[in-house]
Amino acid sequence: MRANVFRLPMQHPGDLSELEGLIAQEMLRADEIIAVIGKTEGNGGVNDFTRGFFTQTLMALLSRHLNEPADSLIRRIPCILSGGTEGVLTPHYVVLSRRGAPLSEPAPSGAFAIGTAMSAPVPAHEIGRAAHVESVSVAVRKAMAQAHIADPDDVHFVQVKCPCVTSARAEAARAAGKTVASADPNRSMALARAAGAFGVALALGEIGASEVSDTALLQNFSVRSDRASISSGVEVEANEVIVLGNSPHWSGDLRIAHRAMSDALDIGAVMQVLSDLDISAAPQVSVQDRSRVQAVFVKCEPDRRGQIRGQRHTMLDDTDINAQRHIRGAVGGLVAGVLGDTRIFVSGGAEHQGPDGGGLIAAIAEKVTSRGGGSSCAL
Amino acid sequence: MRANVFRLPMQHPGDLSELEGLIAQEMLRADEIIAVIGKTEGNGGVNDFTRGFFTQTLMALLSRHLNEPADSLIRRIPCILSGGTEGVLTPHYVVLSRRGAPLSEPAPSGAFAIGTAMSAPVPAHEIGRAAHVESVSVAVRKAMAQAHIADPDDVHFVQVKCPCVTSARAEAARAAGKTVASADPNRSMALARAAGAFGVALALGEIGASEVSDTALLQNFSVRSDRASISSGVEVEANEVIVLGNSPHWSGDLRIAHRAMSDALDIGAVMQVLSDLDISAAPQVSVQDRSRVQAVFVKCEPDRRGQIRGQRHTMLDDTDINAQRHIRGAVGGLVAGVLGDTRIFVSGGAEHQGPDGGGLIAAIAEKVTSRGGGSSCAL
Amino acid sequence: MRANVFRLPMQHPGDLSELEGLIAQEMLRADEIIAVIGKTEGNGGVNDFTRGFFTQTLMALLSRHLNEPADSLIRRIPCILSGGTEGVLTPHYVVLSRRGAPLSEPAPSGAFAIGTAMSAPVPAHEIGRAAHVESVSVAVRKAMAQAHIADPDDVHFVQVKCPCVTSARAEAARAAGKTVASADPNRSMALARAAGAFGVALALGEIGASEVSDTALLQNFSVRSDRASISSGVEVEANEVIVLGNSPHWSGDLRIAHRAMSDALDIGAVMQVLSDLDISAAPQVSVQDRSRVQAVFVKCEPDRRGQIRGQRHTMLDDTDINAQRHIRGAVGGLVAGVLGDTRIFVSGGAEHQGPDGGGLIAAIAEKVTSRGGGSSCAL
Amino acid sequence: MRANVFRLPMQHPGDLSELEGLIAQEMLRADEIIAVIGKTEGNGGVNDFTRGFFTQTLMALLSRHLNEPADSLIRRIPCILSGGTEGVLTPHYVVLSRRGAPLSEPAPSGAFAIGTAMSAPVPAHEIGRAAHVESVSVAVRKAMAQAHIADPDDVHFVQVKCPCVTSARAEAARAAGKTVASADPNRSMALARAAGAFGVALALGEIGASEVSDTALLQNFSVRSDRASISSGVEVEANEVIVLGNSPHWSGDLRIAHRAMSDALDIGAVMQVLSDLDISAAPQVSVQDRSRVQAVFVKCEPDRRGQIRGQRHTMLDDTDINAQRHIRGAVGGLVAGVLGDTRIFVSGGAEHQGPDGGGLIAAIAEKVTSRGGGSSCAL
Repeated sequence: MRANVFRLPMQHPGDLSELEGLIAQEMLRADEIIAVIGKTEGNGGVNDFTRGFFTQTLMALLSRHLNEPADSLIRRIPCILSGGTEGVLTPHYVVLSRRGAPLSEPAPSGAFAIGTAMSAPVPAHEIGRAAHVESVSVAVRKAMAQAHIADPDDVHFVQVKCPCVTSARAEAARAAGKTVASADPNRSMALARAAGAFGVALALGEIGASEVSDTALLQNFSVRSDRASISSGVEVEANEVIVLGNSPHWSGDLRIAHRAMSDALDIGAVMQVLSDLDISAAPQVSVQDRSRVQAVFVKCEPDRRGQIRGQRHTMLDDTDINAQRHIRGAVGGLVAGVLGDTRIFVSGGAEHQGPDGGGLIAAIAEKVTSRGGGSSCAL
Repeated sequence: MRANVFRLPMQHPGDLSELEGLIAQEMLRADEIIAVIGKTEGNGGVNDFTRGFFTQTLMALLSRHLNEPADSLIRRIPCILSGGTEGVLTPHYVVLSRRGAPLSEPAPSGAFAIGTAMSAPVPAHEIGRAAHVESVSVAVRKAMAQAHIADPDDVHFVQVKCPCVTSARAEAARAAGKTVASADPNRSMALARAAGAFGVALALGEIGASEVSDTALLQNFSVRSDRASISSGVEVEANEVIVLGNSPHWSGDLRIAHRAMSDALDIGAVMQVLSDLDISAAPQVSVQDRSRVQAVFVKCEPDRRGQIRGQRHTMLDDTDINAQRHIRGAVGGLVAGVLGDTRIFVSGGAEHQGPDGGGLIAAIAEKVTSRGGGSSCAL
Repeated sequence: MRANVFRLPMQHPGDLSELEGLIAQEMLRADEIIAVIGKTEGNGGVNDFTRGFFTQTLMALLSRHLNEPADSLIRRIPCILSGGTEGVLTPHYVVLSRRGAPLSEPAPSGAFAIGTAMSAPVPAHEIGRAAHVESVSVAVRKAMAQAHIADPDDVHFVQVKCPCVTSARAEAARAAGKTVASADPNRSMALARAAGAFGVALALGEIGASEVSDTALLQNFSVRSDRASISSGVEVEANEVIVLGNSPHWSGDLRIAHRAMSDALDIGAVMQVLSDLDISAAPQVSVQDRSRVQAVFVKCEPDRRGQIRGQRHTMLDDTDINAQRHIRGAVGGLVAGVLGDTRIFVSGGAEHQGPDGGGLIAAIAEKVTSRGGGSSCAL
Repeated sequence: MRANVFRLPMQHPGDLSELEGLIAQEMLRADEIIAVIGKTEGNGGVNDFTRGFFTQTLMALLSRHLNEPADSLIRRIPCILSGGTEGVLTPHYVVLSRRGAPLSEPAPSGAFAIGTAMSAPVPAHEIGRAAHVESVSVAVRKAMAQAHIADPDDVHFVQVKCPCVTSARAEAARAAGKTVASADPNRSMALARAAGAFGVALALGEIGASEVSDTALLQNFSVRSDRASISSGVEVEANEVIVLGNSPHWSGDLRIAHRAMSDALDIGAVMQVLSDLDISAAPQVSVQDRSRVQAVFVKCEPDRRGQIRGQRHTMLDDTDINAQRHIRGAVGGLVAGVLGDTRIFVSGGAEHQGPDGGGLIAAIAEKVTSRGGGSSCAL
């Protein structure tokens, strides 16, 4: 069993021609695709429809190849998108696929591994509360099992999409005599992201059950997961989980690593995650090593306290540009500069995901010894 | 004669309290101030009034201290501002001041030097044309003379503010039987910046007179100055020039250096300009060395061709966020990450200023031997 | 033969559930649909993907019902969308359908009539030039014939989508030894809209052939059509034309009327077009009359000269909000206030479409005598 | 004693040349100016510095003419600005001035009257709470007394600027063992506006003291004032109040009237307020009557419930354009269309100011009989 990673460009959010081409050339079979993570060129906010456009196009493509209705596929194959390619960032998507059977004998070195899970639907009155945390935690462990990862330390990146409270859901909850954590859409989305981060932290043993409570969410920012990347959206009712790590049950040439970023200037974390993958950047990754990098994922956040290393920033007070757009552009510029490549997944809304005011970075790369192994493909 | 550099934060575009404090504490005399370069928190566009607000406040302050009308000061002391502190960037201003008399004996090592000049008003029909290039070139040479810099190679950064064609000026030109290069405000501003860049390049010997023609502006992007930073605005009628370099006739602990940036990912250029100042970044400037850095100036540009290293960028097609705001945020994030400091002057509109699609970086720092010398002050 | 008009809300740009419902309830057959004009909630600019998302969803829906590939449908059924529901405007789409055969005997009163046409592809070197004007003009006459409208005075609204020059098309034209009118995307789109407006004006006899020339486009703003509504986009290669008017060969309860708007404050034109349809607004359309209104189409423009009735406006200088978004919001607010209804199609980019600095308005309404006739449906 | 109103254009937020001109021509003495209400061309948000720029320029001008420090003037003469001239709106300011002594004998007809007041500073822990309501209420009554208005029904427009909780004030309150209503800047500003509206309603008898409570603010939207226009900002510590009405103790040719607006489409309210001033609009105010209009003030709000007359609006979900900018543009377009004039003061953030989802409109006009009276001046 080996994982393949395809990092593909798109000309617009409805352009899946690169994936179509890979399938046509038999470099990838549609039934091998187990998840997609992508960066579309919208604004990343509530009215960003590039995510829905991409998802509709992807599911129609898979439906044609798999003879399975798009409605069914969308509940089975996580497609988690972040809108907003600010600054130098380029619209792209990462197709995560699996081929073959698990190794009967675990290999000590192991390789990059993928697992996914969908939780049961989260009732509106549980969203952004401790019960939501538990729901995510269970789903993460399920995805780890699917990925054949037993040791939480082998997990390096967990992408989750959580449901949030919509007006309709809030209304229904009220009618049923329940209260919701917040009926304000933006706060509900933030609470859902917080619950997701707590859930990942709990599943990975980064925190204990005693640290989970309704009131800790968006309050106690010392609680965090350095491997959680959470989005929340009205379009899902259940938690969608993608676990990425290394496992002795997988073969292949890929490995994944991650590092916490202490703040938006933490270039050291970028260098370290590359170093973990035997890639040096002095100061920029060489052309040769660059071709080994298969995907880079970053979470970041405009510092809530309005300052970075003692200097005021203006992101939170800008009425013209959303703060998340600001920070994605800045951190994207930094990471792309080190990598020498603009195909970086950078997502905002990093509450409890990495250090407060900072975030995290994960990268997938071919092992040094594997040059020419051909298990993956970056177009 | 020594130059002092004060890099000061502001709480809003009308906040000059830090400068007022320095004068009150007698760390600086108002009559020592010869130029100000700053980054205000507007949008950097035509309707960015933070620059006017800051300038009005600065001139009122100087007027009080110097007993000279603000109207007169504004024609004597260049105050060149770039709006837009996207991403991690912090609003700040750099006060450039001079104290004492020139060295009678040039010192071989020399030190950081400043010169300014104002050209004669540029008639509307000359703006953005070869005559404008010549006008800038003459002013640059005048500022070099004032800075006691004879060798053009000793010039490392030339900040120019050029007039552009307003509707009223275009009308007046037409009435006088003249044509203007362009009556479109945005094109006129770009042409004026191009003329400014050509003018600097000509003065510094980066190009010869044969390379200057009306038609080369905004057309022949191989013509460039790697030391020119040009802005243009309706508020000036003459070219305002600030030349920064090193000169054997100045003393003090400061030096300046510059590098061209080949594109928006050119982290190597950032490292090199620091290296030129005996500062290493591995990958980030140390706290100790960071205190030696007095000012950093960057020019950058969203690549006209829509791609960065072969990957599509979306800056030029974004109807919601101006392309210059995108690129300032991204390049600012990169440079701030290397410096570990968000007090970076980053300005867009870099036509003919550094390589096409890239830009340039200049930095002023204390010399290594000067630690504790106290000739400068970063608050 | 009668035309039915369905004005339908959408929850997001991929939501065609109202149309799906009408078809399921057999209020409309998919094969009766001949054109769609809609207002989606994007930014209306180059990076507005809500139009593509809606179109993809519509064509997939029609493809299911008609057993015809979406690729074929998209070249046969015009779907012309304007992005941007600024201010009070609501996202909605107008489905134009036709049922039955033409009257054998023309009825003197006549009724609302629809015709569509697709021109041959416009080569890149002809876009935005006189040849493009001719191509549009021919297509408009073809659509008039399909609509059984002989008298140009019976045409009240012509919606056209024109191709523009993309980088790829410009490159191909150059390779073939041809020049393009402009390779700048925004200018090319404006030139294409201008050519479309000239083409409509020519077909309707608003101008003569002698007024058409390459150089008159975007220059001679006295040339105009008061019935043309033009958009341009990279996604089409041919001109798509929808002609709306009244014809003695159609039956039914609907009529259409139009008026030129002299500027963005021309509330009189709004009142007059309603009056033409026997609807009074004193000052607002009554609830009863409001139900007779089936669709309202408006074109408008931020005055190029920077003033409205002698007072400065700031739309053209705003770096934060695109000028077209400004004007759509303002004129939409005015028209919606008179109508008492926010389902107004308001589109910018009105060069040569109505008076310079103004625009035009068209409305479709049930005739007074037809109350209860039920030939149309507004949900 | 008579009030004069001068409605003046500005070329940019620092342009007070029209006022300077009036003073130079002795049409107005600086010591007659008692308040200024204006519309500057910023974004109207936290980072809108056009208000500060204008205020600084105004106070410097008055300081020169009155030989009084700007710091003192700013605490004495209310200058209340709303940023954002979306759509057709034009940047302008209304100078409210007073000349002469009160009539010894009240005249039954009366005339337009102005009064101002500054409250004591509002401690941070009282902002946005019942104590704040009381503080505003007291100041409104004080301003009424200054305006010689005894009957609350004679008050037609009350402009208030309230302080809000800044981070620093919240910190200080906490240090003193107090809590603040909200430390979130946007919520604090909304609560402050709500307190201001309650305070006006209480002073004018629109509500009783029993309806005032901490919890009613931003909760019970049936509580409202149809004459309150409230802004809040970090730059003030006390409530600044401007009361506009009619009083038998004033003479002159001006009158003021107001109407509630039920929603953003309420064109009827615009017609009615004009009718109250004997101005007809059928549908647009005639050129002759238009010259009688001295100032128009509007408050409006994007409907919290996401719908206008049953149709979805997209203002609240737009990540690119702030909802207040949307609504100002739309309602400004409507009112300007009826008036035939773009010099309309339109301000958002209308919580409890007029009907929920709507707002209010007030207008000052010359009486019919007074044509040629010359007590006022609209440039």
